[in-house]
Amino acid sequence: MTTGRLEAFSDGVLAIIITIMVLELKVPAKGDQLADLAPLWPTFLSYILSFAYIGIYWTNHHHLLKAMPKVTGAALWANLHLLFWLSLVPFTSGWVGATRFAPMPTALYGVVLFMAACAYYTLQTVILAMDGPDSVLARAVGKDIKGKVSPLLYLAAIGLALVSPLAANGIYVLVALIWVIPDLRIERALADPPDKSGA
Amino acid sequence: MTTGRLEAFSDGVLAIIITIMVLELKVPAKGDQLADLAPLWPTFLSYILSFAYIGIYWTNHHHLLKAMPKVTGAALWANLHLLFWLSLVPFTSGWVGATRFAPMPTALYGVVLFMAACAYYTLQTVILAMDGPDSVLARAVGKDIKGKVSPLLYLAAIGLALVSPLAANGIYVLVALIWVIPDLRIERALADPPDKSGA
Amino acid sequence: MTTGRLEAFSDGVLAIIITIMVLELKVPAKGDQLADLAPLWPTFLSYILSFAYIGIYWTNHHHLLKAMPKVTGAALWANLHLLFWLSLVPFTSGWVGATRFAPMPTALYGVVLFMAACAYYTLQTVILAMDGPDSVLARAVGKDIKGKVSPLLYLAAIGLALVSPLAANGIYVLVALIWVIPDLRIERALADPPDKSGA
Amino acid sequence: MTTGRLEAFSDGVLAIIITIMVLELKVPAKGDQLADLAPLWPTFLSYILSFAYIGIYWTNHHHLLKAMPKVTGAALWANLHLLFWLSLVPFTSGWVGATRFAPMPTALYGVVLFMAACAYYTLQTVILAMDGPDSVLARAVGKDIKGKVSPLLYLAAIGLALVSPLAANGIYVLVALIWVIPDLRIERALADPPDKSGA
Repeated sequence: MTTGRLEAFSDGVLAIIITIMVLELKVPAKGDQLADLAPLWPTFLSYILSFAYIGIYWTNHHHLLKAMPKVTGAALWANLHLLFWLSLVPFTSGWVGATRFAPMPTALYGVVLFMAACAYYTLQTVILAMDGPDSVLARAVGKDIKGKVSPLLYLAAIGLALVSPLAANGIYVLVALIWVIPDLRIERALADPPDKSGA
Repeated sequence: MTTGRLEAFSDGVLAIIITIMVLELKVPAKGDQLADLAPLWPTFLSYILSFAYIGIYWTNHHHLLKAMPKVTGAALWANLHLLFWLSLVPFTSGWVGATRFAPMPTALYGVVLFMAACAYYTLQTVILAMDGPDSVLARAVGKDIKGKVSPLLYLAAIGLALVSPLAANGIYVLVALIWVIPDLRIERALADPPDKSGA
Repeated sequence: MTTGRLEAFSDGVLAIIITIMVLELKVPAKGDQLADLAPLWPTFLSYILSFAYIGIYWTNHHHLLKAMPKVTGAALWANLHLLFWLSLVPFTSGWVGATRFAPMPTALYGVVLFMAACAYYTLQTVILAMDGPDSVLARAVGKDIKGKVSPLLYLAAIGLALVSPLAANGIYVLVALIWVIPDLRIERALADPPDKSGA
Repeated sequence: MTTGRLEAFSDGVLAIIITIMVLELKVPAKGDQLADLAPLWPTFLSYILSFAYIGIYWTNHHHLLKAMPKVTGAALWANLHLLFWLSLVPFTSGWVGATRFAPMPTALYGVVLFMAACAYYTLQTVILAMDGPDSVLARAVGKDIKGKVSPLLYLAAIGLALVSPLAANGIYVLVALIWVIPDLRIERALADPPDKSGA
């Protein structure tokens, strides 16, 4: 049993999530001036950030599934669980945009990112359990600083959102930036597999 | 003729169904407080349940198509028939949420699940007819208790919905839970194919 | 250069077309009784018919691309041209449903089906030109009675729609029924390739 | 690491973009006469043009990724950057249609095309850097007249739009026409690879 169809389905869901978010950018019913687009700015900025986050999850998911030796029931559902939380990003992103980065929507945006990060961590743990402690993935993940710091930053942003939504959104941008570089640790480890010969 | 493109098309349709359901969670036009999301709770709960059901069908479909030796016209249309009923889930799920689990929408939700279960059973029968009575799938399906009990539970829930929609929705949750574990019978049988050597 | 990505893209577009049609079935804003769904019946019937037509095109497209030796610029654009007309089916299907099978929408539905049939014929011609007159596809298409009769029936239905939309819709159902059986001529010819040995 | 999943994800996103544009063609709430479709003509014309542009990007992307030896982080993000700008086409296309080719929407349509062209150029540059100056792609792209002229024509159209939106839209049609012929330069070069023997 290969991981091909799991990838194909996940690609489909992620491709749809990343694209339907643009439907929150509603064409103005009236008006053909740039000023008529002004109310859409917050939604557009929120769209850029969410597009980047879905892109980040796609690239990391791409690396993670390469390290998955086979598809088990646990892996299938850990993967669907991750897709579930990511499927809520268009909603929270749209609410943040519609309310111009209001406190509560900004906090909820962070809650969904936090839950997605936990779901990603769970999927990674399921795959690590299959691979064993000496696997390429285990070596690659290593101490996994980014993976552990990100949820903490989301939690900080959720609390901060109610005081200063601007700062909270700044944290979301920051976390996105440190992830845009795809999981090069895994890339490097895959290029340099563990020595099996014992020599 | 391989089953690859049948899988790819089915994956595409299922990925879209599972994702467009989230469009029923409409961003509140006004309001940036948690209280403004309160009317969305029933829709959100219904979304979780429907997401799980589409996920269940996807994982079982994944296993079923692995046992399909070739694509015939009958299999193509049995598969499209299944996708047709599943494509109605976002509509019935949205109606259940919009009416806060009212009796008639809850019953209709069950009707669509029942029809999808029948369509799945038909597809399985078509594939079994190709494979023969000694095939891996035939052995795996065996007495197929889950497959036979689920439609009966849907029928019970449809009747019950008009009296107690809460109980009916409880049955839908129960059936989902007994299916979330993917069709391990098939997984086990594939891992342990029938002995062809006669030894 | 293989036909794999052409298939994948076409599968994606057809999967989306077949699924977004269900968005025309709008959840009633108010009302939780079966009677509240009554206005949706025409849209639902139209959805069934259109689902069948997209399914027909998908299965036949599946067979046609198997006979395509390579991807050329002409084939790419003949394929996109076909997808363009099929992409209009959700719109015309929705209009037919919203107007309860009114004459003009029924005629327009036929126009889109007619144009899609012409686009399919063009794509088939492009592939036949690559394959040569002795190819499997050329033998399989043969006199292509269904392929030639269908556009004539669409034309008849378009004219008839303005007088009796019911009869015109009956013709669309009839044409769908004669196509639901996938292009078995091609299936048979592929199973029985032309004798190359000259023996 | 192969380019397969990058293609699959891009195909998914492009398939969704090309298909959801048709959702801007909203079924008239009332009216069953051809006259009731009259307000949709600009949106329909804009849809045809945008469908052609997404088709052009898909076919060229198809050729470009064939020349990509492996997937790097830079290539992943250059590709997502291209998809981001293309994901805005349904919005700008819808605004052009809704305002009947008004000056500002026409200019914005050109801005998005210009940014997509720049993103495509960036992706091509990233791939060229991997392939080296003697690669098939480097020879194929050659002086790349179309690739360099198109952005200039978009810039001209953006300026012209504010004076004569009709002329600007004419330029968009013209650029589409010169691209509909897929990137035959690459096709030819791939069919005729550079002589490695030195003979």
